[in-house]
Amino acid sequence: MLKIGDLVFLYHSERAKYLITVQEKGSFSTHKGNIPFSELREKDFGDMIKTHMGFPFHILKPTLADLSMKVHRTTTIVYPKDAGLMMLKSFVFPGARVIETGTGSGALTTILATYVQPNGKVYSYEARSEFSDNAKANIKKLGLSDFVEFFVRDVEKQGFDQKDVDAVFIDLPEPWIAVKHAYDALKGGHSLVSLSPNTEQIRKTKAVMELEGFVRIQVLEILERELLVRITGTRPAERMISHTAYLIFAQKGKKPTAE
Amino acid sequence: MLKIGDLVFLYHSERAKYLITVQEKGSFSTHKGNIPFSELREKDFGDMIKTHMGFPFHILKPTLADLSMKVHRTTTIVYPKDAGLMMLKSFVFPGARVIETGTGSGALTTILATYVQPNGKVYSYEARSEFSDNAKANIKKLGLSDFVEFFVRDVEKQGFDQKDVDAVFIDLPEPWIAVKHAYDALKGGHSLVSLSPNTEQIRKTKAVMELEGFVRIQVLEILERELLVRITGTRPAERMISHTAYLIFAQKGKKPTAE
Amino acid sequence: MLKIGDLVFLYHSERAKYLITVQEKGSFSTHKGNIPFSELREKDFGDMIKTHMGFPFHILKPTLADLSMKVHRTTTIVYPKDAGLMMLKSFVFPGARVIETGTGSGALTTILATYVQPNGKVYSYEARSEFSDNAKANIKKLGLSDFVEFFVRDVEKQGFDQKDVDAVFIDLPEPWIAVKHAYDALKGGHSLVSLSPNTEQIRKTKAVMELEGFVRIQVLEILERELLVRITGTRPAERMISHTAYLIFAQKGKKPTAE
Amino acid sequence: MLKIGDLVFLYHSERAKYLITVQEKGSFSTHKGNIPFSELREKDFGDMIKTHMGFPFHILKPTLADLSMKVHRTTTIVYPKDAGLMMLKSFVFPGARVIETGTGSGALTTILATYVQPNGKVYSYEARSEFSDNAKANIKKLGLSDFVEFFVRDVEKQGFDQKDVDAVFIDLPEPWIAVKHAYDALKGGHSLVSLSPNTEQIRKTKAVMELEGFVRIQVLEILERELLVRITGTRPAERMISHTAYLIFAQKGKKPTAE
Repeated sequence: MLKIGDLVFLYHSERAKYLITVQEKGSFSTHKGNIPFSELREKDFGDMIKTHMGFPFHILKPTLADLSMKVHRTTTIVYPKDAGLMMLKSFVFPGARVIETGTGSGALTTILATYVQPNGKVYSYEARSEFSDNAKANIKKLGLSDFVEFFVRDVEKQGFDQKDVDAVFIDLPEPWIAVKHAYDALKGGHSLVSLSPNTEQIRKTKAVMELEGFVRIQVLEILERELLVRITGTRPAERMISHTAYLIFAQKGKKPTAE
Repeated sequence: MLKIGDLVFLYHSERAKYLITVQEKGSFSTHKGNIPFSELREKDFGDMIKTHMGFPFHILKPTLADLSMKVHRTTTIVYPKDAGLMMLKSFVFPGARVIETGTGSGALTTILATYVQPNGKVYSYEARSEFSDNAKANIKKLGLSDFVEFFVRDVEKQGFDQKDVDAVFIDLPEPWIAVKHAYDALKGGHSLVSLSPNTEQIRKTKAVMELEGFVRIQVLEILERELLVRITGTRPAERMISHTAYLIFAQKGKKPTAE
Repeated sequence: MLKIGDLVFLYHSERAKYLITVQEKGSFSTHKGNIPFSELREKDFGDMIKTHMGFPFHILKPTLADLSMKVHRTTTIVYPKDAGLMMLKSFVFPGARVIETGTGSGALTTILATYVQPNGKVYSYEARSEFSDNAKANIKKLGLSDFVEFFVRDVEKQGFDQKDVDAVFIDLPEPWIAVKHAYDALKGGHSLVSLSPNTEQIRKTKAVMELEGFVRIQVLEILERELLVRITGTRPAERMISHTAYLIFAQKGKKPTAE
Repeated sequence: MLKIGDLVFLYHSERAKYLITVQEKGSFSTHKGNIPFSELREKDFGDMIKTHMGFPFHILKPTLADLSMKVHRTTTIVYPKDAGLMMLKSFVFPGARVIETGTGSGALTTILATYVQPNGKVYSYEARSEFSDNAKANIKKLGLSDFVEFFVRDVEKQGFDQKDVDAVFIDLPEPWIAVKHAYDALKGGHSLVSLSPNTEQIRKTKAVMELEGFVRIQVLEILERELLVRITGTRPAERMISHTAYLIFAQKGKKPTAE
């Protein structure tokens, strides 16, 4: 049976779906009708519940993609299609210590915190305290606060406090300002990932990475396309998200020398 | 300093890169020259080493994408671009219990085992014992054996042994044969992911998923495109991998009734 | 100087652009203000004109893509990204005789008629007279009536009247019904192009093409992606049209025999 | 019956296909065996012919895409997927007068010359005489010499000889050098198309276009993806050409003034 505080994904259709937290009292309102929390608490994941107007909703477990996409947003966020590859092409695993900057709305923080459990830690740096506060509230709501430490800081001037971390993630308008600090914070041979929407940002960031001693630098873009499988036929969806960001992957090597 | 048994990614360039295990004796041969293991063991991750012909190689930590792509292959494997999204849109996390079938070469097994550490488990089912044996050897080499249990079995006839698992992954030529068993093994509201190259496989699998009580079914395809950032200019690579597989994501709901 | 009846593309921005025909009297209304036709007729292509509210519009020559996209639509239409390749991979040239079915809204008809001038002809077949009438009006407005002959007909039962045509284009919900007739109408070795949104339509059409004696059958899909080049940076547009139709290209060979 | 000089596309399979010119004597050699021209001349388009080893080849009419892709190459060429859209989004039609620079290998020249027949003309400028000579030979072989005038010239310094042309096409490493000349040569409101592989080229060319008075500037990229329709299933091809060039489309408006 669902408990107060449980995160639940209520699903009627792609146009009527909600990520909610189970409450003690009251009811959840949708444009398909209301669902009293008292009724919801008698159900379990996988059950179905009907609104007072009779529309059925499936009670689903929210995926990590759902949780990260549904954080309260004060900024643009990292998309699951991008975040998935970022995890595999870096060193995020149970027990890892990783840095991200900026915190933004905490979408990537959510994903990182989930994977570094139970012994690892995410060190999340953000210049604007209002963003950091919002992200902190998002992470708390998801029960992940034990795995994240937040810092409000001008990273360019002050750098990072940690050494020998397993991975660094940069999501800043001027990513190059954090590259040297990322180098100093990383374990040898470990990875830095930066993402930016524009080719000019990528170009400058890559140049600074090379100067600072990063190697095996690769820039990728991930496109996600939906296939519609219907009674009437199978075909790709008519529209798609074409671009979110370019991803730069790099690993800490030796600084180039004049030799 | 590197130790015997460490996995190392030796990187000279995109055309000369190797995933190796540090040995006690002998040397590693590349077409750029040899690297004696005794010399390598005096280095650390992030250092550089030169072959006897003078070519420099960076000593990098292999990413999870490297490890999964470099398993000894007896079958086609799941690509990182696909596996990344599969992780985020299902329930794979430290402590999770997940099922996959078939084991194949163990590329996905590698990824799953990494993320379910230290208390979770991957139950990996495969019909052909020679595939299972190869994958088991791959997983052992990566030091992940504690987190995987292998089964050689005809899943269609015998199903899975586990109940209440967090996620099921199907990578079979006829994925629909395992859908009912996946339903029985999953926790309510949790997720099933299946991947197939052909639209006909997807269509049939989706139909069976609907009949068996899976909901929120979505079919996606992930395209990875490289951006070349060179002195001479910035542009997408001329060629790309256009298609590996379609991914179906679904969650366990209530079976449809005649009501 | 512009004349009555001239087709003009008025362009203020991507959000305010209009394909209009120059009239004798009155004025053209936009949400940026009005432009009197008497004033417009004192201008020429390439000039600028201001609305009564002071917004500037460029007076541009409409491209063939503009003309085909702006036909009065009663149906979905063929997009320029698809039509362009369809021209090059078939035999549409000044003097060519080509068949299309169905006529639809006349978007493809517009393109075909433009290229077969001054001695060729488009034979355009459509089952529904209201569609044919609308397309005929569209073609007349564009001054291309001399190059198109319209037929209202059930092609499946009655076939085409022409023989030895240079190319046949099929845009029907059940394209396979016209394949045999296309074979009979085409010159040897010449080309048939069919387009359909769904893979099932493509599969069946291709199978019928093979049975009827078409060879060198190829299925392609064209994706058009916009690159935004702005002061703030260069990047692909966030959204794109992902799918309009699959295109099948084939050429008339010898019917397969039991030999 | 085929005649000496006819262009024929011999098609056995995607791996054995040839564009040839019918000769008086001798035979054409393929790795599937030889085909004597005397035998070929007794056939017609759409017929089948067997090599001395018994392999069947279909005798097909080469499409415009075939002709342009098979020109003797001394340079990279414009691909049909790009050229098709370039035709529709500019003013190339029977009777049009159009300029291109550089001539390159004559692939685009072939397409332009085909469509401007019988009264139009392509003015093709190239800095290097050896490229121009090769392209001239290609065009002659295709029987299109009456529709093309070749110029060997440094366009940056000397500009174009024509005025009031319907369209200008630029395919140069430094496209911006020809933009002002294109403006001077074009009819008002008519179109300029430029193509370049790199974003930096696009950025600079677009900036110069804006300064010179071009409007409605749009940058597009065309991706062509093959769908494999086989007995075993339907799926996109595993690999695709990801990038050839970005296309800039613009139309001649009024030069921006200080007003």
